Formats: sequence, C-alpha cells, structure tokens
Amino acid sequence: MTSILGGLETPALVMDRVRLDRNLARMRTKLAGVRLRPHVKTAKSLDVVKRAVTPGSGGITVSTLKEAEQFFAVGYRDILYAVGIAPNKLDHVAALRAKGCDLTIILDSLEAARAVADKSGAAESVVPALIEIDSDGHRAGVKPGDARLLEIGRALGKNLRGVMTHAGGSYDCKSVEDIRAMAERERAAVVRCSGELRAAGLPCDIVSVGSSPTATYAESFDGVTEVRAGVYMFFDLFMAGIAVCAVDDIALSVLTSVIGHQPEKGWIITDAGWMALSRDRGTAGQKVDQGYGLVCDVRGQPLGELIVSGANQEHGIISARGGMPLDGARMAQFPIGTLLRILPNHACATAPQHDGYHVVNEAHEIEARWPRFSGW
Amino acid sequence: MTSILGGLETPALVMDRVRLDRNLARMRTKLAGVRLRPHVKTAKSLDVVKRAVTPGSGGITVSTLKEAEQFFAVGYRDILYAVGIAPNKLDHVAALRAKGCDLTIILDSLEAARAVADKSGAAESVVPALIEIDSDGHRAGVKPGDARLLEIGRALGKNLRGVMTHAGGSYDCKSVEDIRAMAERERAAVVRCSGELRAAGLPCDIVSVGSSPTATYAESFDGVTEVRAGVYMFFDLFMAGIAVCAVDDIALSVLTSVIGHQPEKGWIITDAGWMALSRDRGTAGQKVDQGYGLVCDVRGQPLGELIVSGANQEHGIISARGGMPLDGARMAQFPIGTLLRILPNHACATAPQHDGYHVVNEAHEIEARWPRFSGW
Repeated sequence: MTSILGGLETPALVMDRVRLDRNLARMRTKLAGVRLRPHVKTAKSLDVVKRAVTPGSGGITVSTLKEAEQFFAVGYRDILYAVGIAPNKLDHVAALRAKGCDLTIILDSLEAARAVADKSGAAESVVPALIEIDSDGHRAGVKPGDARLLEIGRALGKNLRGVMTHAGGSYDCKSVEDIRAMAERERAAVVRCSGELRAAGLPCDIVSVGSSPTATYAESFDGVTEVRAGVYMFFDLFMAGIAVCAVDDIALSVLTSVIGHQPEKGWIITDAGWMALSRDRGTAGQKVDQGYGLVCDVRGQPLGELIVSGANQEHGIISARGGMPLDGARMAQFPIGTLLRILPNHACATAPQHDGYHVVNEAHEIEARWPRFSGW
Repeated sequence: MTSILGGLETPALVMDRVRLDRNLARMRTKLAGVRLRPHVKTAKSLDVVKRAVTPGSGGITVSTLKEAEQFFAVGYRDILYAVGIAPNKLDHVAALRAKGCDLTIILDSLEAARAVADKSGAAESVVPALIEIDSDGHRAGVKPGDARLLEIGRALGKNLRGVMTHAGGSYDCKSVEDIRAMAERERAAVVRCSGELRAAGLPCDIVSVGSSPTATYAESFDGVTEVRAGVYMFFDLFMAGIAVCAVDDIALSVLTSVIGHQPEKGWIITDAGWMALSRDRGTAGQKVDQGYGLVCDVRGQPLGELIVSGANQEHGIISARGGMPLDGARMAQFPIGTLLRILPNHACATAPQHDGYHVVNEAHEIEARWPRFSGW
C-alpha cells in the first residue's frame, strides 16, 4: 500500500501541477505573436488562472457573470463575457462596469443590439460589445456575408468594439489537417467581417478568435488581435482523441477507491460515479471510446485496457475497454481500498462537480488545495 | 411580457412547491404500511427533506458522508449511507457515530466486512452494517444463494444489522408490468437472504429495499422493514418515460432566456447549456428522446414539439423533437429575452448543477429560495 494521496477521502479531484504549468507554457510559446485571453470557464479558480495571466496584466474570457464578479474582485479588469447577452443580465453588466470592471459583451442580433443601445443611451455610458460571427455553423453568430452584420454594427453605435468567433466545430475534426483548416476558416471569417465593418466606417478594434484545438494548430493569426482558449490548461481525453494533446498532458484526474468486485461480470466497483466524473460521454463518438474515463494507478499511469465502462450517481464500474470483463487475476490486483485515478473525458464537465483541486507535485504529494467556484 | 419569474437572472433552477408536496404525499400514501426512508441524494436540501420527514422523527438515506454530516447537523440521527464503504471513510464514519449520529453503512465483500470488524473491535464500539444484495444484476451486491452471504455476516459479527438492495435495474424497465416484476424480485431477494442469515443464527433486523420505480409499483412489502426512494420528490422526464410519473408531476425546471436565433437552421439559442441542465441524456434510450430537456413556457406548460436538441457549456439549442428545424413563424413567437422553463431528463443530475432552488407557488411567483449543497 502506498501512502501517496492516501490522506484523501474519495472521490476527490486531483490536479497535476507539473502538467498544468507545462500546458500553460506550451500555449504561451505557441501564441507568442498574438495576445492570449485565457478562458477561465474550465478552471474557475484564481489559483489556476493567475498562473496563466497575472491579475491586472492581461484580459480573460468568462462564460458567466459570476466568473466576471469573482475575477474582477481579485484584480482582473479586462473581461470578455463570451455568451450572447440576455436582456435580464444588462443591469448586472452595467453594475460591474460602474464598479470599474472593463466588461465587454457579445451578441448576434439586431434585437439585442438595440437593447444594449437603449440601455447605454439611458445610462449615458457605454457597454462595449462584440458582434459574434458564425465561422463554423456550429452554434451562434452572424454568418460572414450576412447583411445583418452592418445593421447590428450601426444599431450598436458607440458600443461597437469589434467581432469575435468560436470555432467549436473544431471539436468534431477528425485530423490535425482538419483542425488547421478550421483555424484558417475561423480567422478568415472574422477578418472578412472586420474589413466589412471598417469599410462601412464602423470601428473594429477587436478581432477575437479561439478554441483550444484551433489555437494549438493555427498557422496564421494575421488580422486577429486576440486568441481565446480555456481547456488547454487541463486538457482531457476528448482533446487527446483529436490529437490536440497527449494523454500524459492531462492535468486533471479523479481519485477513487475500489469498493467492490463482481467476479461473475468481471467488474471492479468504485466510489467515483457520474457525480464525480460528470455525465460527459464525449469520447463515445471518437475512434477510442473511453467510457466515463481512463483508469490510472495512484501515480497517474494508465492501466492499459481499464476504463470506467459504467457509472451511477456515486458508483463507477471498471471493466476492460469495450465492456469486456476482467479476469480474476486482473481483479485481484485491485483489492478493496485500492486508490485509482480516472482521467476525464471533458475537463470542463468534470471540474464543476468538485469544489476544489487537490494539487500534486512531481512526486504525487499534495502541495496545496485550490478552491474553485460554480454557478451563475 | 410577463413578470412571472422575471426577477431572476438566467439560468436558474426553479422548484414547483405544489408538485413537490403532491409527490411527497402520494408516496406517503402508497407506503402507508411500511417505513419510508427517503433518499436525500437528489434534493441535498434541508428545506426539501424536512417536508418528507421531520428531523428526529424518521430515518433518511444518503449517498455521501457530506450528506450525513449536513443532515445530522440539523437533527437527523438515523442515517443509512447506501454506497459500499471505502476503507478511507471508516474514520469519518466512526467520528460521526462518536458525535451521536446513528450511521449505518453497507458492504458486499469479506474484505470490507473484516475491515469494519477490525475497526469496530479496535474502537470497542459498533459500526452497524447491512450486507448489500444484488437483486437485479445491475451494479453491486452479493447474489441471493451465494455462500459469501453467511461468511460476510459472520465476519461482521456484532456489526451486522441486516440486508439491503437497490433495484436500479428498474430504470431499464419497458412497462409497468416489468417494474412490478422487478419490485417483487427486489423484495424476494432480500427476504430470502434475511431468512438465510436468521436460519444461521445471525441477526437481521433491517430488510431494506428501494428505488422510486419499484416503490411506486410494488404490490407487496412482506418481510421488508423499510423502503428507500429519492427522485420521487422531484421526478423527471426519465421517470415519466417509464410511466412512474406524469410530465406534469415534474417539480424541477431550469429557467432560461432566449439569447439568439439561427434562422437558416431553425434554431433558438438559449443561455441554459449542459452546465445548467447537466450532460444527462438518459431519455436517449427511451421511446421518446427528449434531448437535453423538454421546453415549457414560463408557467411550465410544455410547448409541444420543442426540446433542447443540443447543448454546449452555457448554450442550449432548441429545435423540434428529432432535430427538426423550427419555421420562422414559430421562432418569432420567442423573441430575444423570452423566458422558458426546461424540464430535466434526470433530476439527480440537474439539481447538483445549481446551489439552490427558487421555489414557486401555484401562481408561479417566487416564495422562497432553498439552498442546496454538493460535493463529498
């Protein structure tokens, strides 16, 4: 029995600080020629984010106004809220700006632009806004070439700051070549739209792109003023499945205990179910289906064929990949109480299931506990 | 524009108190002849659970020691921790018992039984334990007829209190008849095991069964001393999909705002993504796939064919069932800022994404905010 991580009650979220720092450094090197505006939606932790960007020294991206509140409170001022604004949040945005937070919002409709213009007109102040561009047909945004771009820009008036896009479609890419092509499509879409705005005499200081896959493989950022990326801090099995990282770059894992065996089925039962791992099954659509996560020993070394093949709320079921049963000899290697670490499919979904990170060093000793927050 | 729920920033978790109370009353009536030990894993809220059982007046079931801590702190003493015990939790269990919490654990192996016996022997105290029985081949437990039952019972010694099972397989039932049969199989399994323990001269005061489906449709509890159920408090689309409740019994919904439209795709974009709804896609395997949730108006009335057909972290995509696009006239009924309520696939997965319940009355006015906790 090892005492590594043995002081923790399971399940518990473990952060490999060495991998985290390596991931942060790699992206900094990659983006040396363009401004990086890290997305804090995955980490939701000051201790993590300050390693990516020092408070006051650069901007961040958020997915909720709660993130804006929390990070503004510790010194981050330049914050982009990168979800299309809902009218019921405009008062909250205005309150944050009144306190000195340089908060920018996004939108993709004339209705929302008019709501913002009305609000900022009434308040005799500005609510800086970016027009969201749809570069990949994946979710939201105005398509390049759509006449609504200029209408929205004009409706925004003094509030217009530029354009942004998120190539979430890069998650569906099947090869590095596809991701490179998606990155170029992402860049070209916002650069074209920025040109159209400027040609019409409208301002466009900010031209923002980003996703961890496209940020990793983009060959050009010409015309782009900033790049957003978030999951690159931790990475996960999904990102490894599209070759954006290696499995041994994954900084996040869930510590769990073996609590039972089902010899007839060839199952090991653990105390990390979907509440600890999340319900995310993103790798189900990839070449290698990792179930609810890849099983590692307590030092984080993958155990070959073992995955979490099933999960209930507080129970995980470990078998071999493809649901194949484990034989008695294999199961005997994992007696009751054995500690295992599970690499997650999707860091953005697994981290929010926990209220903090148990941070480990090179020797897998706990060196800190970093709190994280959740909610809106 | 209605002002109902208009004071909330979206997304937000809404609890229909009338439906909650109706669900609680119905289960009380159904189980009038047997003790109900509500499972608090879904609610994780004192305000909810005290409506099901008054502190001090009856027992509860928990899925984490954090639930045991929190509910013991407000007056619940008789608590069953219904996940196979991990050795690293035995000190925590002993500490809770030393403070006066009548905490019972479960296990299904000789190894765990010996660990408990060693612990309680050393502490010169008792750690009451139930042997988990596998009534449905679904997850954990000792199969009825397995000789290990008596070995585990003997190893537990003075700690043995009885047997328990959870027919989680009832979630896969395709008809009410199937659920009735599963309930009988659940009952028969523990009653048989209790008989075997007693015949061997071992004690078996507690014979515990439970799942919301089997509790709802069981025809006999002969030989059973208590029934556990949890999701029946709130219900969800999954339970409606197996006829355990009606859609209008579902007490939980996620309030969201329309933040955009994609006219070419026939999509409405909202600010409730999988972070607010959860990643649970449990209805995908049912007759009616509800996507990430069924879309209702702000009063909670289902809007026919509208479901959340896609979800990113903070974005929901609404289309017609089956991914069919909405036409322009239909989309125009939901301008930017429209408030909608989404019924969840799985209440146990959706509730933990939020830190509290906005409680509404018959008129859909907010009458309270009930906090909930998460974690371990």
